[in-house]
Amino acid sequence: MPYEPRLLTINAKRLNDTIHETCEWGAAHRWGDAPTETGMCRLALSDDDKLVRDWFVKEMTSLGCEIKIDQMGSIFAIRKGKKDGAPTAMGSHLDTQPTGGRYDGILGVQAAVEAMRTIHEAGLVTEYPLAVVNWTNEEGARFPKSLHASSVWSGQLSLEDAYALCDVTNPAVSAGAELDRIGYKGTVPASHVANPLAAHFELHIEQGPVLESHGQRVGVVQGGQAYKWFTIRINGRDSHAGTTPFDYRADPMLAASQFILAAHEVARAHGGLATTGIFHLQPGSINTIPNVVEFTLDIRHVEDAKLAQIEEAIRASSAKIAATNARYQCTIEWEPLFDNAATQFHPLCTGAVERAACASVPPGQVRKIVSGAGHDSCATSRICPTGMVFIPCREGLSHNPREYSTPEDCALGAQVLMDAALLFDAQRAA
Amino acid sequence: MPYEPRLLTINAKRLNDTIHETCEWGAAHRWGDAPTETGMCRLALSDDDKLVRDWFVKEMTSLGCEIKIDQMGSIFAIRKGKKDGAPTAMGSHLDTQPTGGRYDGILGVQAAVEAMRTIHEAGLVTEYPLAVVNWTNEEGARFPKSLHASSVWSGQLSLEDAYALCDVTNPAVSAGAELDRIGYKGTVPASHVANPLAAHFELHIEQGPVLESHGQRVGVVQGGQAYKWFTIRINGRDSHAGTTPFDYRADPMLAASQFILAAHEVARAHGGLATTGIFHLQPGSINTIPNVVEFTLDIRHVEDAKLAQIEEAIRASSAKIAATNARYQCTIEWEPLFDNAATQFHPLCTGAVERAACASVPPGQVRKIVSGAGHDSCATSRICPTGMVFIPCREGLSHNPREYSTPEDCALGAQVLMDAALLFDAQRAA
Repeated sequence: MPYEPRLLTINAKRLNDTIHETCEWGAAHRWGDAPTETGMCRLALSDDDKLVRDWFVKEMTSLGCEIKIDQMGSIFAIRKGKKDGAPTAMGSHLDTQPTGGRYDGILGVQAAVEAMRTIHEAGLVTEYPLAVVNWTNEEGARFPKSLHASSVWSGQLSLEDAYALCDVTNPAVSAGAELDRIGYKGTVPASHVANPLAAHFELHIEQGPVLESHGQRVGVVQGGQAYKWFTIRINGRDSHAGTTPFDYRADPMLAASQFILAAHEVARAHGGLATTGIFHLQPGSINTIPNVVEFTLDIRHVEDAKLAQIEEAIRASSAKIAATNARYQCTIEWEPLFDNAATQFHPLCTGAVERAACASVPPGQVRKIVSGAGHDSCATSRICPTGMVFIPCREGLSHNPREYSTPEDCALGAQVLMDAALLFDAQRAA
Repeated sequence: MPYEPRLLTINAKRLNDTIHETCEWGAAHRWGDAPTETGMCRLALSDDDKLVRDWFVKEMTSLGCEIKIDQMGSIFAIRKGKKDGAPTAMGSHLDTQPTGGRYDGILGVQAAVEAMRTIHEAGLVTEYPLAVVNWTNEEGARFPKSLHASSVWSGQLSLEDAYALCDVTNPAVSAGAELDRIGYKGTVPASHVANPLAAHFELHIEQGPVLESHGQRVGVVQGGQAYKWFTIRINGRDSHAGTTPFDYRADPMLAASQFILAAHEVARAHGGLATTGIFHLQPGSINTIPNVVEFTLDIRHVEDAKLAQIEEAIRASSAKIAATNARYQCTIEWEPLFDNAATQFHPLCTGAVERAACASVPPGQVRKIVSGAGHDSCATSRICPTGMVFIPCREGLSHNPREYSTPEDCALGAQVLMDAALLFDAQRAA
């Protein structure tokens, strides 16, 4: 008989207690009077990270799991199934931003732990092995590459480069050395070939406002957006703000304003996003038209092809803006910084998440959604079927000590995560 | 018989030689191989300023002028006329920017000196006294108030405040102390009441591109623009560039772009100017929508009433921009920094300049023009009839070592200056 969602029910109180108990390791940035009203600073491979890893290993061992630690310190806690084979995994990360909250990553791992406890208590034996994974340094906050260990596992980053990455505040400390220091440089190859997963499910707070503002409770994540980063440099001609008529100006601040508006209009028309988060100009005098401005452009779309169209259309606008003034022209230079292709999650996984969600809440409270941020699931999805569950977070706030999701929403997310993983397992056997 | 323009002719070579000989005091910033291919650094009340003042006093004395030095160090070299009375003055300044050129201010004084030489050689006796004035610290580069001494003379700045102003690089050194040190704190009251002028004429390089680009040779300056400076602060909501849809953003960078474009459109529609020369945003991360941006707004118009209309229209646009997004709104704050009313030159003076210009070049090469920058004439025009002559400068460049006007244009400007002053003098007698 295939598994039916909500056959088992996770323990909401136990999940909530575990989240906050384990947040003792790294609690920081108090913002309220209640004991749990702090944020987190649990940087990857720090002493606090070691303590929560030790707890995780002990807890999972107590649930009958076998522990595998790979060369990047990612921890795979595996519970036997009826048959051998690559495990169906539920994973996320226990590291945080330096001014992070109690949910980003943490919820994903603790919900998976709670799911495993629930399954263990019920004595349920899955068809194939089931795993909980804690991926190392998802944030990239201390060692500046996000999805650090999951990218090594998926083959997008070499182990050598991953080890060589240094602490942003102390170039003398490498990730490899810190793995040694805290005793988490394992011997299992950090590779999907030697250490495969059959699927990867992840629960995460949305980190955006969409679910909350629509009064919806579960996001069925369809994939991750494609995005590209550029530095845009506009060269003009510095001249006196009082003595230089408009038609004699090559004003890069004006051109930048036109560029940024055009980028927004193009992105909106294509259903994508455009953002400028860094902006500088020179020389910087009230009554002098600048000679150069430099700013960043972050463009995003769910589809690679549409993102390419957005880039093309903004480049066309850019060329027009530069050519606007016949007398003195600005020149606009594009420097590519980063390029990340879109991620499409696997229909078997998105289907399992959707079915699980609709078993717990009315369909109107379930929303198909695309992840705007990167997650370990974006790395695993390049290798194995992957799915994600989003729950609302207050005001869309994340990477902030005040990050918050209600205990009810956390429990709902954990239920959907467990049900989706068990549905997938049952499907594998069918 | 009234004076006719070009009755006397200035000596072009002597003018050009004098400009460059006296630029030995303060020559700096070499940019070419020829001996005169340097800029200038002759800061007000510096040792080099003292040397060129000493030269000026000696030269004007040799032309039969009486020398008056006022309490601000401004030097009035006065040649007797047929009748007594307030002199008709030709004035400008011998101080420069730290990275200045050989024409801004200097040309105005040396052209007046050359006019006086020409009149003296010809034995012409004017109806009323004629004066050459060197105003102290027009630039405001060393002691940070432009039109420093002419503003005291016109009653807009108190002598006490003027003396108390300190060197921007050394707060221990005041303008009053430096006047004492170089021996140019005179006893003549720095006041238009005690030391009146009947009129003030000034030759200056345009410092903009209009004459050059129209192939015109003389600008008849109608007055100075009104201008206002503001700091604009736009508060938004920092959020993730990937997870925050457009409709959930309060993006101050987008609002700033809209604001700057609106300001330009409004200014253009009203025949004015708008410039943003300083721009900052926070927190400054590629994938984070900023929470605050701050920038300057410089708006200008020839007429005070039109400038008020421009400000009003930009404020209306600003309110609309802030209200654009229903969900999360940016707030826009205006902080006034500076407010300078328009200057209208006197029709007797602009008429004299125009008649003088048209006597030297075809009317098509003469252009009515408004000064975008401030000049000592803007201060004197609040008190006495004032007029200015502009000549083209290469590429509109000024406050730059490469600032340049041809010897032919300098001579033409000096001729027009002399003719205008003599026309005014003749008119006074009529």
